[in-house]
Amino acid sequence: MRDTHVRLAHGNGGRLMRELIEQVFARHLANPLLDVGVDAASLPAMAGELLITTDGFTVKPLEFPGGNIGSLAVHGTINDLAVAGARPLYLTLNAFIEEGFELGLLERIVASVARAAREASIAVVAGDTKVLPRGEGGGIYLATTGLGVRASVERLALDRIRPDDVVLVSGPVGDHGTAVMLAREQFGLRGDLQSDAASVLPLAEAIWNLPGLRFMRDPTRGGVASVVHEIARGAGLGVRLAGAAIPVREAVSVVCEMLGYDPLYLACEGRVVAVVAQDEAPAALAAWQALPQGGEARVIGKLCAGTPQVVLETEFGGERLLEELEEDPLPRIC
Amino acid sequence: MRDTHVRLAHGNGGRLMRELIEQVFARHLANPLLDVGVDAASLPAMAGELLITTDGFTVKPLEFPGGNIGSLAVHGTINDLAVAGARPLYLTLNAFIEEGFELGLLERIVASVARAAREASIAVVAGDTKVLPRGEGGGIYLATTGLGVRASVERLALDRIRPDDVVLVSGPVGDHGTAVMLAREQFGLRGDLQSDAASVLPLAEAIWNLPGLRFMRDPTRGGVASVVHEIARGAGLGVRLAGAAIPVREAVSVVCEMLGYDPLYLACEGRVVAVVAQDEAPAALAAWQALPQGGEARVIGKLCAGTPQVVLETEFGGERLLEELEEDPLPRIC
Repeated sequence: MRDTHVRLAHGNGGRLMRELIEQVFARHLANPLLDVGVDAASLPAMAGELLITTDGFTVKPLEFPGGNIGSLAVHGTINDLAVAGARPLYLTLNAFIEEGFELGLLERIVASVARAAREASIAVVAGDTKVLPRGEGGGIYLATTGLGVRASVERLALDRIRPDDVVLVSGPVGDHGTAVMLAREQFGLRGDLQSDAASVLPLAEAIWNLPGLRFMRDPTRGGVASVVHEIARGAGLGVRLAGAAIPVREAVSVVCEMLGYDPLYLACEGRVVAVVAQDEAPAALAAWQALPQGGEARVIGKLCAGTPQVVLETEFGGERLLEELEEDPLPRIC
Repeated sequence: MRDTHVRLAHGNGGRLMRELIEQVFARHLANPLLDVGVDAASLPAMAGELLITTDGFTVKPLEFPGGNIGSLAVHGTINDLAVAGARPLYLTLNAFIEEGFELGLLERIVASVARAAREASIAVVAGDTKVLPRGEGGGIYLATTGLGVRASVERLALDRIRPDDVVLVSGPVGDHGTAVMLAREQFGLRGDLQSDAASVLPLAEAIWNLPGLRFMRDPTRGGVASVVHEIARGAGLGVRLAGAAIPVREAVSVVCEMLGYDPLYLACEGRVVAVVAQDEAPAALAAWQALPQGGEARVIGKLCAGTPQVVLETEFGGERLLEELEEDPLPRIC
């Protein structure tokens, strides 16, 4: 391509759009099912119950330690399927690109989409690009839709949660939120903290054959606190969290302390919160801890009969109600 | 909801986001498969070959005579499935909404999504919203992904096109592009022209049982000219268009003349271009003309052996090459 930056004409349906799609998107994402010359892609027969999910991505900065918006858009949708108990198979990709966007950066993003898809053995089968006039669009937004097939032995749902069930988290919380925050120039801070952004498929696979697995969710926007609130509300039960048991990296604690954030409300992009029947919790924990990405998995709380609220037991023996998130702690990190 | 406009906190994963989703999106889009409390929606078993497509939408103004960005986003994806020979069944919806967006307008848009889906008997099964900081985002962008099941008796593809095949269009071209253009205040023009934006499913259904149907496409971005170029390139054949046969409304001709546009390059959002074997073209034309939306369907050209180029026969007996679209004739109309 002769251009170095995206032009409005790259979105007009003519020659330049065709070249952008062929030379940037199709070249990286090539697979037997992706045909840029058709309006709809034909999918091979899939045995089992189909699950579908969709998600939009608007992270700033677009590239951050541990990933970029491209890998994030793939992992985010893989993760939504994986925590719903489904094996991800196919993905569609929408890109809204601002006029003037650097084509080199676009290539890096699309290459990351391709790499993340390849690593999870899924195919990007359909896509669309729109070009937005300069001054709108904040660079690039992506949306991905994922299709997968149920693999968990039980239906995973909030209504299966019972008193005495146990809450687990697969690793330290708040890494993604903190890493993205540090990557923003306006904070004038730098750290070696990486985002946790990754596919959680291995974590989900490791426990989805447990009959006592009730529910999983990846704590993205709103963090672990929002997932636990959703659990309390959806199950109609109380949740007690053991504050001291929740894994938080030293660097995350320090930065949050400095900036006045609570890591429990910060997004993760590669963690899982699971609710498991009490008697199977040790097996779930062991399965996670045997994985490279689950070494720091912990039991962090339990369900109890009573008011649907979240009580946080502090390290010093006290307790307080953990509030539902109201105002924005940190916009645009996933 | 107490707010009148979208706030950043409506996208943060907390209480306000939950209320926005429940009270605006879920209320209008309610159906048995849509569960806002799960990460992925479970789909009923579907018999047959599955097709999937995705599309992004960025029209300005957001409301125009004949539709708005919500109905457009549903029709656009229904249409991509329909022209691929598939019956649309399920849709996912992504919304990127700018901070400060009026909630009343958002409701009208979501209500249009719901109405367009209901009219086509499809269900919106999953969705996601992101809120973009004020000054980015141009109001609202939507992306829809559609899933359908093959209904055409033959695979529809460019490689099935043969010399002497006939090109048909289902109705007047350029209505959508012109109506959107007139709805933009900066032109200072007003007309009673309506966008043609609509589901083309009835048009596709009317002919997808014809064994001689080779290919269909809805001429959106880049208009009929771009579809015909795609046909020539994909089939490796020439296309001769009979300029006098291409239906163009008087109002569209007049506006295009004034503003220097060619209606052949303007987007339609409710038309179909079809390629049909010569001996079945009369049946296809008759089937379309029997429908309310196909009364002005016409044969507009034919395929011929030779260089893959598009020749336009003018009304006065001359002919010229119809160029592929290069620069943008009219940004952001679909």
